[in-house]
Parts: sequence; C-alpha cells; structure tokens
Amino acid sequence: MVLTSLLQSQNLDAIVVSTLVQIRYYTGFEGSNALLLATPKGNVLFTDPRYTTQAEQESNCPVTIAQGPLFKALATRLKSLKAKRIGFEDKKISYTLYRELTELGELIPLGDSIEKPRWVKTPQEISAIRASVELNSKALDLAMKRFKIGMKEMDLAAEIDHQMRKLGAEGNAFDTIVASGPHSALPHAHPRNERIEAGSYLLIDMGACLNGYMSDMTRTFGVGSVPRKAIRIYKAVLEAQLAAIDAVRPGKLAGQIHAAAVRVLKAHGLDQFFVHSTGHGLGLEIHEAPRLGKKETTPLETGMAITIEPGVYEAGFGGVRIEDTVLVTEKGVEVLTKTQKGWTIVG
Amino acid sequence: MVLTSLLQSQNLDAIVVSTLVQIRYYTGFEGSNALLLATPKGNVLFTDPRYTTQAEQESNCPVTIAQGPLFKALATRLKSLKAKRIGFEDKKISYTLYRELTELGELIPLGDSIEKPRWVKTPQEISAIRASVELNSKALDLAMKRFKIGMKEMDLAAEIDHQMRKLGAEGNAFDTIVASGPHSALPHAHPRNERIEAGSYLLIDMGACLNGYMSDMTRTFGVGSVPRKAIRIYKAVLEAQLAAIDAVRPGKLAGQIHAAAVRVLKAHGLDQFFVHSTGHGLGLEIHEAPRLGKKETTPLETGMAITIEPGVYEAGFGGVRIEDTVLVTEKGVEVLTKTQKGWTIVG
Repeated sequence: MVLTSLLQSQNLDAIVVSTLVQIRYYTGFEGSNALLLATPKGNVLFTDPRYTTQAEQESNCPVTIAQGPLFKALATRLKSLKAKRIGFEDKKISYTLYRELTELGELIPLGDSIEKPRWVKTPQEISAIRASVELNSKALDLAMKRFKIGMKEMDLAAEIDHQMRKLGAEGNAFDTIVASGPHSALPHAHPRNERIEAGSYLLIDMGACLNGYMSDMTRTFGVGSVPRKAIRIYKAVLEAQLAAIDAVRPGKLAGQIHAAAVRVLKAHGLDQFFVHSTGHGLGLEIHEAPRLGKKETTPLETGMAITIEPGVYEAGFGGVRIEDTVLVTEKGVEVLTKTQKGWTIVG
Repeated sequence: MVLTSLLQSQNLDAIVVSTLVQIRYYTGFEGSNALLLATPKGNVLFTDPRYTTQAEQESNCPVTIAQGPLFKALATRLKSLKAKRIGFEDKKISYTLYRELTELGELIPLGDSIEKPRWVKTPQEISAIRASVELNSKALDLAMKRFKIGMKEMDLAAEIDHQMRKLGAEGNAFDTIVASGPHSALPHAHPRNERIEAGSYLLIDMGACLNGYMSDMTRTFGVGSVPRKAIRIYKAVLEAQLAAIDAVRPGKLAGQIHAAAVRVLKAHGLDQFFVHSTGHGLGLEIHEAPRLGKKETTPLETGMAITIEPGVYEAGFGGVRIEDTVLVTEKGVEVLTKTQKGWTIVG
C-alpha cells in the first residue's frame, strides 16, 4: 500500500492525509469531514458523529468519531504515538492546518507522492470511468431528441442534467455548459435564460458523476443554417482534436499532445484563438494530473484517463470545442467517448 | 470598502485575496481561477485567458489576464509596487500559495477580517436568499406532487433537482438528500437505488443555488402508516426547532440557539440522538459563519441568514430533521421558509 511504503521510504512516524478525495481513495469513506492518519501500526480515519454509521460501512480502516474538532482528536493520537517525523500534503493542505501540525513534530512535505497513485487508474477505476462516459453520451442523445430551435439554454442544460440523473448519475461532474451564438466564445459560459437561435453554434460541455467517477465531453453543433466560416473553423478544430488523440501513447510528454493540437490550428491560422490547454486527467476529480498544457513534461502512462479538448474562440463570432475522454493504453489510445463528432446541424 | 479600510487600519501595502467566493463578493467575477490584489491604488483581478471576456463583463476592477500561473503575474505586480507588508487570508489560503507569498514580503494574517462582512447580508443579498428559498420550496411542492410509495430515492432526488432547474436555479446548493426508512438515520445520506416503502420516514434535505445564493431546507414526512413512536419523535424535533427559532434575536450567542434546541430534546429524552449543530449561516456558500453549535460565542446580528435544523437519528429506526432558513431581524427573526412543517403523511 502506498502510504505504508511512504512511511518506510521516508522514515516517517506518521502521515496526515487532509484532502477528502485522497481520503476516499485510500479508505473508501465518502463523507464531507475527515482526516486520515497513517502510521506503521495502521490507518485511523477521523470524522464527526454525523457519519458514525456511514464511516463504519464505508471505511476500510478503524474509525474514530471526534466529539469536537477533528484536528484535536488527531493531535491527541499523534502525541500518544510520540510521532516525530510527520509527512503531510504540502500541495493541498490549508495553511491553518499546517500551522497546527507544526506544533506536533517535524513536518515532511510529501509533494505529489500521496496523489500520484491516482494518476494511473486501476482496472476497477477504468470500468467506473467507462460507465460514467457511456452514461454521459446517452444523456446527450436523449436530451438532444428534445431540442428545438428557440429552446432556452437554461432549459436544455436542465434537460441534460435530468437525463443524467434518470440514467443513475449521482450528479454532475461540473456545471453543464450550454452556450449558443457568440456566447459560445466564452470557454466557461453559464447557461442563460436566452433562446438558442439558428445561424450559429450550440456548444455543450457536460460530465456525469457515477459511483464517484467523472466523465467529460464537449460537442459543438450548427443550429440551422450557418455561415461557411463556422463550418471551416469546426473542421479545423476536429482535425486538431484527431491529431492530438493520434499523438497519445505511453511515454509521450503531456506537452507534446498539446503541441500536436496547436500545430494543426496554426496551419489553419487559428492558434491564437486556442486559449486553454488541450486536456486534463480525470477520475474521482474532474481535473486531475496530467495537465496537457504547453511545456508540461509529465510522461503519459498506460492507465491514465485524460480529456482531449482543443477549442477555437472568436469573440463576437462564436466558439468550437470538441472533447472526448480517452484512455492511454499499451498500444496507444482508446477513445472512450463514442458520441459521433462529424459536423452536425441540429434543429 | 472593507479592503481599503483594512489596508489603512493594518498599515498594509497590499492584500492578496485567494478564495474564489471572496473574490466574487468583492469584484463580482464568477470564474473558477482568480487572484485578487488590493492596494492603496485600487484592486486588480488576475485570471486566465479562458475568462478574458467574462472577467471584463463581471469584474468591478481592472483585470490582468495572465498567460502563465496567476501567482507569477501577481508576484510581478507586487514586486513592481515594492510592497512590504502583505495581508493574506491565513484561514483559507493553501500552504503552497502561502509559501510562495513568503518570498515577496512580510505576511500579515488577516483572520476573519476579509470574510466577516459576508456574515451580515446586504438588502440585495437578502432579496437573493429570499428568492432562492422560495424557489426551493416551490420545487419541493412540485416534486412531491409526483411522489408515490414505491418510488426510488434516486428518482425522487432527480425529480427535485429537475424542478429546481426548471424554476430557474443554476444548480443545487449541495447534493439533494432523499433518505427513507432506517437510512434516514444517516444525517448525510446519499439517495439510493431503493424504493421508498410505507411504514417509516422520508427525509428530504435540499437547497437551490439562484443567482449565486443558496437556500437550505429539510422536511421529514411519514410514508403511509407509521409506528406511534415515529410521530412522537417528529413532534419533539418540531418543538425543538420552534424553540430554537424563538430564541433567535440580535445579541443572542450562536451557542444559545443550539442550547434552546437541546433543552427541548433533553426533556423528551432524545438529546443523545442529536449529533450535529443546530444550524449555520448561508449566502454565496452553503456553509458560512456563524455555526450554531455548542459553546459558539458569535453574537447574532441583524441581517444574518441562518438555518435552524435540529434532528434526531436513531440507528436502525430512522431519523427526523426539520430545517428552515431564517433571517435575524431587528425585532428578532423572520422565517424565510414558508413550506408547512406539521406532521404529514405522504403516499
């Protein structure tokens, strides 16, 4: 187990895990208030009385129900263990908790070591992501059957989310984006109380959370008849997306995937409109490592689940983004998202 | 303005605001990646190129679009200002950002000072919370019209969320809880793929997010015919909730509201089953100060919006929670949640 081997390799008396998603990964506990203490004698989960029953059901290690602040209960335990060298999540911990911990021993920053195992997914995790991706695609299909020109962005977003939930998702991986017309040029647009009119793009970015695992997909449609320029931009983005997917294989650096997308957009004179990175890992969180951005040197590994999502955003005209969730495999890449992505007119 | 007067009173050259919700409160910007620098010369918002257009539309201060990490752009600005004393949010900042900031000047912890103005709501904020609370109540009414015994918890939760969205909510304030039977004894239960059967409780805890502002309400129903004990517990919790509401007025300490609820439950021999605090503030976040817990000494002030939500949870039997959102007023209290809460049988 990773925590056990970290205790040994770093010669630690204890590790304090303070990030809920890491605690879920290592113990199975899904509550909203917890601390995890790993020691050579085993792990202990600290939570509050609201979670007495749930923690017993979910956690793979002994649970201490704290009557007051969790930190106080954890500090008491650390003192009784006479812990001297204490590992902590320096990249994620809050300053307040850090300051409290400094009074208990020598703090050893563990960098990415606690999080890193999550970058490469286990077969169980891959199945969970696959199921989340499939549900997400089905929800889009069902919602688009109800789409009509003149529908409001907010209503289409609500329809998408309802379909996800009816298919069994616990919730959204993030707030669904439905952006039409020039508004599609805002990469992180909120759905508005505005009608989706013919003559421009309809951009939908959506993700489900199923059994804790995220999916992420963007599709951009033409609504009714659109200017030829809109189709030209769409085809350039699709070409860039396919080139980036084609570049994915174990050993490639994250930045090289981004470069593959940029190269295509540059050839079309559109690279200055591509204002974000090409993708990101996903799993229990919607944004995980690796980030597929410029200069990123993380090597891709078999078992990583990542998004590939180049986009072009022209203020006043509109935006196109095409995004799939893909899996890095021994042979290269498997595109998990099966929703078709050829240029499509809706309405 | 609070930041300006903090700069003066603490003799600071700059304040770094790093928490997104505080940045939204002070600038209006709603994006997911930002830093705010306040100086005697005015504020600057730092965000990334995805938000170029949105930041210009939303922010009440000049915007710097950073091409790389936001911190780098902020550090460059701080150096050019020759800032020496820099205020920071010690309770919320990440350890990593804290460590980066230490290289730029003397760091002055500001405690709650940046957050505190948010505890007392402005008239505009009160209107927004009121609207969110009304929407939430309407959504429950509409969803319960479709309730039938044998419906699955997940499907009822999905129906509730869909009604919220159709009424105009951007989303949920938190994951909707629908818990029936003995499962209602878990204060933070997830909706299951299980049918809601007659003979026990149906507990629903739900909140909407409307124009950024949260609402929060819990109702517990009887499903079909239930044991007399279930009704007895319900009435005790209702009595405790009404007593706690009755205790609310400016100047009372948060802990005194909790004590009022505990006193009633104790008289019914049920206080050992009340495992959480009596409520919390809400606004742009679902959990804000004050926390209405044991020993909490924050005095209530006119304009605070808080929840009042005592509960009784008996493992193996079931749980009851009754929760309203209320406003502390000059005269005492206004209950914003209008949904009726007398003992009700559904199905």
